[in-house]
Amino acid sequence: EESISTVAPKKTPLSSWHESKSKQAILDFVSVVTDSNHQDFVPIEDRIAVFDNDGTLWVEKPYYTQLKFALDRIKATSKEHPEWKKDPIVQAVLKDDLQAILKEGEKGLMKVVMYSHAGMTTEEFDQQVSSWLDTARHPKTQKKYTEMVYQPMIELIHYLQENQFKVYICSGGGIDFIRPWAYKVYNISKENVIGSSLKMAYEITPEGLVISRLPEINSINDKEIKPVNIQLHIGQKPIAAFGNSDGDLAMLSWTASGKNHSLMAFVHHTDSIREWQYDRDSHVGTFTKGLDSARSKGWTLIDMQRDWKVIYPYQKK
Amino acid sequence: EESISTVAPKKTPLSSWHESKSKQAILDFVSVVTDSNHQDFVPIEDRIAVFDNDGTLWVEKPYYTQLKFALDRIKATSKEHPEWKKDPIVQAVLKDDLQAILKEGEKGLMKVVMYSHAGMTTEEFDQQVSSWLDTARHPKTQKKYTEMVYQPMIELIHYLQENQFKVYICSGGGIDFIRPWAYKVYNISKENVIGSSLKMAYEITPEGLVISRLPEINSINDKEIKPVNIQLHIGQKPIAAFGNSDGDLAMLSWTASGKNHSLMAFVHHTDSIREWQYDRDSHVGTFTKGLDSARSKGWTLIDMQRDWKVIYPYQKK
Ligand SMILES: [Ca+2]
Ligand SMILES: [Ca+2]
Repeated sequence: EESISTVAPKKTPLSSWHESKSKQAILDFVSVVTDSNHQDFVPIEDRIAVFDNDGTLWVEKPYYTQLKFALDRIKATSKEHPEWKKDPIVQAVLKDDLQAILKEGEKGLMKVVMYSHAGMTTEEFDQQVSSWLDTARHPKTQKKYTEMVYQPMIELIHYLQENQFKVYICSGGGIDFIRPWAYKVYNISKENVIGSSLKMAYEITPEGLVISRLPEINSINDKEIKPVNIQLHIGQKPIAAFGNSDGDLAMLSWTASGKNHSLMAFVHHTDSIREWQYDRDSHVGTFTKGLDSARSKGWTLIDMQRDWKVIYPYQKK
Repeated sequence: EESISTVAPKKTPLSSWHESKSKQAILDFVSVVTDSNHQDFVPIEDRIAVFDNDGTLWVEKPYYTQLKFALDRIKATSKEHPEWKKDPIVQAVLKDDLQAILKEGEKGLMKVVMYSHAGMTTEEFDQQVSSWLDTARHPKTQKKYTEMVYQPMIELIHYLQENQFKVYICSGGGIDFIRPWAYKVYNISKENVIGSSLKMAYEITPEGLVISRLPEINSINDKEIKPVNIQLHIGQKPIAAFGNSDGDLAMLSWTASGKNHSLMAFVHHTDSIREWQYDRDSHVGTFTKGLDSARSKGWTLIDMQRDWKVIYPYQKK
């Protein structure tokens, strides 16, 4: 006699996706690489999938969430740092003058990062990120940033995990900015997050052992550095890669160069009503070479407007 | 009616360990952190264990395996590199004059590493390590180096994995020197290996995309750098740490500083007959501050001579 409990109901995967070319490409890919009788079968050990974060798993408009965090942190702590007052960057932050900040270019943004992300322990930073995400709201929807994640992509992560993929984030954002909430929001563990990082130091202090975040870049995990950090953290090529901009082109090309059957896909921001519509001319999430490559190589273009029933989890019925 | 197949026979864990204080400490620790009714229960998500490699999981006498690999590689490739001939280090390597190499100190060893470990792609290096390990033999036993691993420690890795620990190697050895064989030998996946690393570069070549190994150190994963790389790769404190020398003291101290119940243990090389006996006065695997700390803090000292029934897998009956 067969017990009900031993036969788990087969969940319908990707239920927030319309029946579409993108959805079918994903289903076909997973079906093939998990079928031990198929010539393109991939053993569990090699089922690695990597996802960009900003614009691929959560919203990046009107500006990167982490930039807003950085500006808010500088405002919150500038009183404790009278030495910052002379810096035109800090003055611009306090005046909410984003143009003046951007005018300083990379050097200005780097200062913003250092003032807000360095000079504390890893535990303190973790706490600051968590507290900020608890209270900060997205300017358009007034939702928490962790609610501004893409429901269809979360279903995709879970679907890959159910098929025994090891799923990684490989983001230009800070590795320790994403870790505090990735498990709760995406079901991705801290050790499966790859991102930009500062140099760190182990220190014995009167309060105990700490790891301090130093005001020096260790790695900016963008473009050609994504494959390098995938090699450092994972040690082998992914068989599936998901991005949304030219910053992900090297990661997808690297994935495509593997011997295994592979899936490369870009999220294409085509929905001016429910999200934002942007690609070639956008400063955030520029998508030019990546879009051309996807078309010439036949990679999957996920059309947000046409492929997704809902964008955010709170829109689910 | 209960089917036989649904009741897996309970394996006896740590069967190559004598009943001893060390074994009991390990069993007690695992029993407590996996018991959801116990105050020291640790959720699966936080069950992280880290192992040093040289002298903790495999033999490091009479010299580090990776050093032997490096010397053999220089001998094998020196003919292709006439420009190396003038270098006294290369001359010493070709004459098997280990004293002359060591006399050059860290600078000399660094050259040995660069000549043998840099200037090829990650795939080529992977292949070189695998080929070398297939043919090289340990000078004392004439066994393959991958057979010179500690059977009781492998049982410990598996026992922790069965109890849903995520088990990592955190070694002073090269991350890409350990990855090619760690899964087969230890059941530890590539992404769970942390080690020393060179800088790398993603390159588009006529033969395709590659990641090149550059002649520049990225990280030497020893002493205070071990906790730093644990933070970079894992993002949280382990609850169990195993080492064998002063190079692991920071890693064990970092583990001990966590809020969770934790286990810190050193493998103490006490067996002059079946392995080697060394601690304070040894150049390889110096164990002085670590030994003192273990005793003063009540950490577990694994006594190879008294605690282990066999040392190597091939000695198992
Ligand atoms: Ca992006
Ligand atoms: Ca060691």
